[in-house]
Amino acid sequence: MQALKTTQISGKIILVPNCNPVGTNIKAGEYTQGRFDPVNGTNWNRGYFYDENQVREFATTVDKSSSLDAIKSEFRQRLSASIEAKLAQPWGLGLAQQLNLKLQKIAVEADVVLDLHNGPVSTRHVYIPEYAKHAAHQFSIPHCIFMPNVFAGALDEACFCTWWLLQDCLSSRFDSEFNFGVEAFTLEMGSQEVIDFAEGEKDALGILGYLASKGVLDNQQYQPAEMQRLGVSLADYKTMFTDFGGMVEYCVKPGQKVKKGEVMARVLNIDNLDDDQAVHSVLAPCDLIPMLHFPSASVLSGTQLYKCFTNYKEL
Amino acid sequence: MQALKTTQISGKIILVPNCNPVGTNIKAGEYTQGRFDPVNGTNWNRGYFYDENQVREFATTVDKSSSLDAIKSEFRQRLSASIEAKLAQPWGLGLAQQLNLKLQKIAVEADVVLDLHNGPVSTRHVYIPEYAKHAAHQFSIPHCIFMPNVFAGALDEACFCTWWLLQDCLSSRFDSEFNFGVEAFTLEMGSQEVIDFAEGEKDALGILGYLASKGVLDNQQYQPAEMQRLGVSLADYKTMFTDFGGMVEYCVKPGQKVKKGEVMARVLNIDNLDDDQAVHSVLAPCDLIPMLHFPSASVLSGTQLYKCFTNYKEL
Amino acid sequence: MQALKTTQISGKIILVPNCNPVGTNIKAGEYTQGRFDPVNGTNWNRGYFYDENQVREFATTVDKSSSLDAIKSEFRQRLSASIEAKLAQPWGLGLAQQLNLKLQKIAVEADVVLDLHNGPVSTRHVYIPEYAKHAAHQFSIPHCIFMPNVFAGALDEACFCTWWLLQDCLSSRFDSEFNFGVEAFTLEMGSQEVIDFAEGEKDALGILGYLASKGVLDNQQYQPAEMQRLGVSLADYKTMFTDFGGMVEYCVKPGQKVKKGEVMARVLNIDNLDDDQAVHSVLAPCDLIPMLHFPSASVLSGTQLYKCFTNYKEL
Amino acid sequence: MQALKTTQISGKIILVPNCNPVGTNIKAGEYTQGRFDPVNGTNWNRGYFYDENQVREFATTVDKSSSLDAIKSEFRQRLSASIEAKLAQPWGLGLAQQLNLKLQKIAVEADVVLDLHNGPVSTRHVYIPEYAKHAAHQFSIPHCIFMPNVFAGALDEACFCTWWLLQDCLSSRFDSEFNFGVEAFTLEMGSQEVIDFAEGEKDALGILGYLASKGVLDNQQYQPAEMQRLGVSLADYKTMFTDFGGMVEYCVKPGQKVKKGEVMARVLNIDNLDDDQAVHSVLAPCDLIPMLHFPSASVLSGTQLYKCFTNYKEL
Repeated sequence: MQALKTTQISGKIILVPNCNPVGTNIKAGEYTQGRFDPVNGTNWNRGYFYDENQVREFATTVDKSSSLDAIKSEFRQRLSASIEAKLAQPWGLGLAQQLNLKLQKIAVEADVVLDLHNGPVSTRHVYIPEYAKHAAHQFSIPHCIFMPNVFAGALDEACFCTWWLLQDCLSSRFDSEFNFGVEAFTLEMGSQEVIDFAEGEKDALGILGYLASKGVLDNQQYQPAEMQRLGVSLADYKTMFTDFGGMVEYCVKPGQKVKKGEVMARVLNIDNLDDDQAVHSVLAPCDLIPMLHFPSASVLSGTQLYKCFTNYKEL
Repeated sequence: MQALKTTQISGKIILVPNCNPVGTNIKAGEYTQGRFDPVNGTNWNRGYFYDENQVREFATTVDKSSSLDAIKSEFRQRLSASIEAKLAQPWGLGLAQQLNLKLQKIAVEADVVLDLHNGPVSTRHVYIPEYAKHAAHQFSIPHCIFMPNVFAGALDEACFCTWWLLQDCLSSRFDSEFNFGVEAFTLEMGSQEVIDFAEGEKDALGILGYLASKGVLDNQQYQPAEMQRLGVSLADYKTMFTDFGGMVEYCVKPGQKVKKGEVMARVLNIDNLDDDQAVHSVLAPCDLIPMLHFPSASVLSGTQLYKCFTNYKEL
Repeated sequence: MQALKTTQISGKIILVPNCNPVGTNIKAGEYTQGRFDPVNGTNWNRGYFYDENQVREFATTVDKSSSLDAIKSEFRQRLSASIEAKLAQPWGLGLAQQLNLKLQKIAVEADVVLDLHNGPVSTRHVYIPEYAKHAAHQFSIPHCIFMPNVFAGALDEACFCTWWLLQDCLSSRFDSEFNFGVEAFTLEMGSQEVIDFAEGEKDALGILGYLASKGVLDNQQYQPAEMQRLGVSLADYKTMFTDFGGMVEYCVKPGQKVKKGEVMARVLNIDNLDDDQAVHSVLAPCDLIPMLHFPSASVLSGTQLYKCFTNYKEL
Repeated sequence: MQALKTTQISGKIILVPNCNPVGTNIKAGEYTQGRFDPVNGTNWNRGYFYDENQVREFATTVDKSSSLDAIKSEFRQRLSASIEAKLAQPWGLGLAQQLNLKLQKIAVEADVVLDLHNGPVSTRHVYIPEYAKHAAHQFSIPHCIFMPNVFAGALDEACFCTWWLLQDCLSSRFDSEFNFGVEAFTLEMGSQEVIDFAEGEKDALGILGYLASKGVLDNQQYQPAEMQRLGVSLADYKTMFTDFGGMVEYCVKPGQKVKKGEVMARVLNIDNLDDDQAVHSVLAPCDLIPMLHFPSASVLSGTQLYKCFTNYKEL
């Protein structure tokens, strides 16, 4: 891939391939542990740092005459210093948090942060903060989830919540709109146990299309694809759990439109093979599109069977 | 053990032995998975339910003339109904949460909730809500951690936060003190991979001593032990993480008083066996008493090495 | 499925669905542990019992005038007694062996033993003892592995080695052919993490076709499929290991004919992303057909990447 | 520790600290996977190479006039070449076998091979080949297991079986005794999850005492300890399995003499807490000394509870 030519973007661009340095190497059985610390179950992607009060306080110190660039630069120093302080605390930090903070120190300097993930058995989808909704048309990903300004520990949230809140504070304080142009996304690039070089190349082209739309690259060569794009708000992105364990046949595929009442899965309870209760059907509670399903055919009660778009709209 | 004779306690007493129905049976290697769901790392003990708004709203509906018993009874119905509603939600729930909510439905009816835990390699200690601080002298446990009114997902918190907030709301609304007499604690009963029937009998006698102090049992026979009791606030109960991985010798024992600067552990990095950097010493950053240490001699950077009392006081 | 009508078969028929009572329930991460005891790695399917000396000694006691049925019946009593004795030994047995022996006690009474397995990511194939080679045309499975009279711990071997050796001993002692009509097979029914009810029905029909060919069922209704069948001797069924770890793209599918030198897999070493060494290609060392591949996209050096038919012949 | 001064020993001395490069780093839960490959349960210490036929064939080629040193040197070249050939085979090897063979290539050149292990919860013991029985008095380890000339996959066996068989073949062929002076042992150095630097120093001194007894070191300074030593043949080193699962209290310690009928463990079945069947006692089936017990308090039926010396004798 040719070197990126940065133009209008003042900060760096960082692409974060699934940042699980321990998880990729550790096996328990034939499969990969993936996003959970095998020692204590910590999700490797939920230990990022966000201090709402720090943002609010900083906003009160901003001088109205400062340029956007000056504010960004000053704010980045503060963020970086607070991450350093956290990393240096005398009682230490857990492994996930250590790794997350080191990565976040780099991300603080970037105007574009793309966190590249994989799901269990999954179709392509992307998490987009509401304030950067236009980006849905710059990526070439058919399914978009729009995120509110709420921090739940992930890298994209740690980035966009920070700048979003600062913009809101300054806009309200000075009664004029502020836009620092910082964007952060999580791109879900398919199934965790499937590597496909050809699909990977398509994904890379899609990312170049986004960067071209931002003016970072020559936009003649790379362009967002023309395609149907569907969007939901985070509140309409629902997890479906099973109520019973057993061997499961997944009857619908990630990305497939499903009507209310259709059979999504059949769960076979091998303790009941002799009677009519052997097979339970899991029905769609409403019209939906599954984004991913659990990767194993053996499930316990309470397993996350599917995560689904509901109330989705064409963009 | 003779049957308990309940007297003044209006609700039930529940004792919850480490509620990890899946965790106890599942092995990964020779040891037991314990408190983490092996599928996704969920802590089995952090999926309880607490709705602050529900408590605040209920407090506004209480009639000043109602008896304490009437308020308790009415409130319990509400709590129970909201747990039922959560269990019945159409998209289902994770396994830990299913199990937690079923247990919590029972706990809602109790005046005394004792959640019996084990730690990694651990000495006896107990979590006590600040409003029930007197209980430190009713148990026979040498180390007491006093909890603020903050919910972090555990059973004891789900119980005591609820009643504590209701008491505060009503006390403030009616300008007189309310005390429903509901208490909840987590008792840490030693090391997870050690069973000792004789120690278990002592633990049981200690619990009977507490129940006798509450007037539930004949207090001639069972009494709290005369012993030194040390206490800390939760903010002074600190986790010490390692900054480097390796093979570790634990140089101080759970329960042992340690002075600032003493060696708590030596970590041997087998990649550096030939040079002076092979062994790192972990020093006590202040005077402290470790309550527990990590159960394995092999640690990664970022492992929780010790959890420690600091700024502790004799009670 | 209608009830089976047994006719010429004197003993029982047993079908053993993947006999991993612990393995099916235990999870380490999202996937299923499958055929390995999570405590100590024991393969659940390799703890069966075979005592060559017992068979040889029994053969010396057979009276020439005895009927086949009398010999079978007497031999089965001996086998059953020796399994009982092993189960009762005062120092106990490992879990896998306990379960295996209990199952084997049932199998001793059967004339047909079908052990139903799943592989990692796998196409259908069947293990057939050389002396029952004709069965390749009675099953409807495209890939057949012919087994020598060697015991390696599996259930089918424990069954067929026993009767095969007895036949050989008696044939040689009395200089006339003995055939007790006992057959045992392992049927590999596809991928371990895929449940597909429609495929399962086809598999069941194939088994009924075998039983009909044996005269157990009305052979008008159920018949072996007309299809290409390929066979190899066990010595030509080869395991391909990787020499390097990384993220792997499987370029050929189980069941696909591959020519010598074709790319079977590409392994991406993410530590070398910047140079030409990032991707290693794994080439076919000869003409072959993979039966199965490793189920994960993340492999260590020394991982069993594929198991392959080589020197296969049409039957 | 001062540098070793080699004198009479012609080959190298190798000390192998528990050779589990993957096992030491991999965690499943808080503990360490230890001796089992987490992917497929392969024991890291059972993939060594021994080819009985190669030894027998070599013995037929030895010229009577050759010196011992010449025979050793020639034999080592053959062994080394056959290991190389195995490592280079076109279909590859499993990870454990790859690592084992690389280590064995080094061991082939050594006259003394010491494989340093840890057990679950364990006292010190040592495996000694029968032909080197005198070494029991050169080590300072109280418990000795004497090994027959049988290969079961371990490093010490791969070394001593090879030289032992060669000695036997040559002694029988030339009717005079051959002794190549090659010795190999497995030293069990205590519990796998306990690091104790002071104990480690004692263990190191014991090894120096053995080396001094062999004349490798100045034997004034380092000497075997005066102590009681107990020995058993491998056939009398017995594994005790449980017949039922539950929570277990280990009532006797590794190294403790136990009389027939004494209680060794109590297993609590928490499903039967209300009745008399809640606790099973595990009794000693004969006089014995446990060397190690299972490291967890939670056991399944079929767990290896203890490994024990029976019919032991003072040496």
